Amino acid sequence: MTDDALSLRPIGTIHTPFRTLDECPRNGRQLSPPPVCRVQLAAEYVPGLRGIEGFSHLILLYWLHRGRTPKLVFTPSFDTEERGLFTTRSPARPNPIGLSVVAFEGIEGADTLLVRNLDCLDGTPLLDVKPYLVSTDSEPDATMGWLGPHRTR
Amino acid sequence: MTDDALSLRPIGTIHTPFRTLDECPRNGRQLSPPPVCRVQLAAEYVPGLRGIEGFSHLILLYWLHRGRTPKLVFTPSFDTEERGLFTTRSPARPNPIGLSVVAFEGIEGADTLLVRNLDCLDGTPLLDVKPYLVSTDSEPDATMGWLGPHRTR
Repeated sequence: MTDDALSLRPIGTIHTPFRTLDECPRNGRQLSPPPVCRVQLAAEYVPGLRGIEGFSHLILLYWLHRGRTPKLVFTPSFDTEERGLFTTRSPARPNPIGLSVVAFEGIEGADTLLVRNLDCLDGTPLLDVKPYLVSTDSEPDATMGWLGPHRTR
Repeated sequence: MTDDALSLRPIGTIHTPFRTLDECPRNGRQLSPPPVCRVQLAAEYVPGLRGIEGFSHLILLYWLHRGRTPKLVFTPSFDTEERGLFTTRSPARPNPIGLSVVAFEGIEGADTLLVRNLDCLDGTPLLDVKPYLVSTDSEPDATMGWLGPHRTR
């Protein structure tokens, strides 16, 4: 594998109302209602959206471009004990790839997805759009360990 | 942003029973039961697993290192019409990042996660481990567009 094989290129840009890290909600469902955000694909990738209208939810992957240096163990701001990074959704990760399950509200123009449930900064580089599949992505009985008492819905 | 800011480094290696692309199932839940797979973290990242025992499900991100050149529109093998790439989970993507929601079965040694529901090749580079949060990741009523009639469970 060459180094080149492990490099990414943005395929678009995510526009949210959140201009600073302090303005970002703790997760995309914390605000009620979550605001509509705009996910604009670069023109060359627009053909890949064909048929996306029928999906109610999407998974977005994006580059956490303002991420800080990761700490493998830290005390989250809303908690009192040290937790392992991989039991958190902290944006400071060895590979700073953010993931959100978003409600898909429609297409604006030919190139912009309207979505809810994002918590990332305005201007975040988009890496991928995947269809959310209830058959493989939804686990309604999942338990969430130490985060259980902190859940927001 | 420098080019370096958009580069990834593996944090471990995924071991599955699937040695060739032909052996990989269509998704991680197609086999019954799905086999246990081993996700081995590099030693330097092991402290980040602290407290992971309480989570029933995890989200794994990995590098699809044998991916082919993406086609933005193509006819899936199990379908008869052309579909947009971003309405599929094809491994051939502009940024070949794979995502699986896996059932977490326990830790082996200090560094290896035992999981079910993977469909990727043996030797796949691991990029991230995230806790699966029922509060933000589970959408049991999601609709899946043209893929609906093809669902496997």
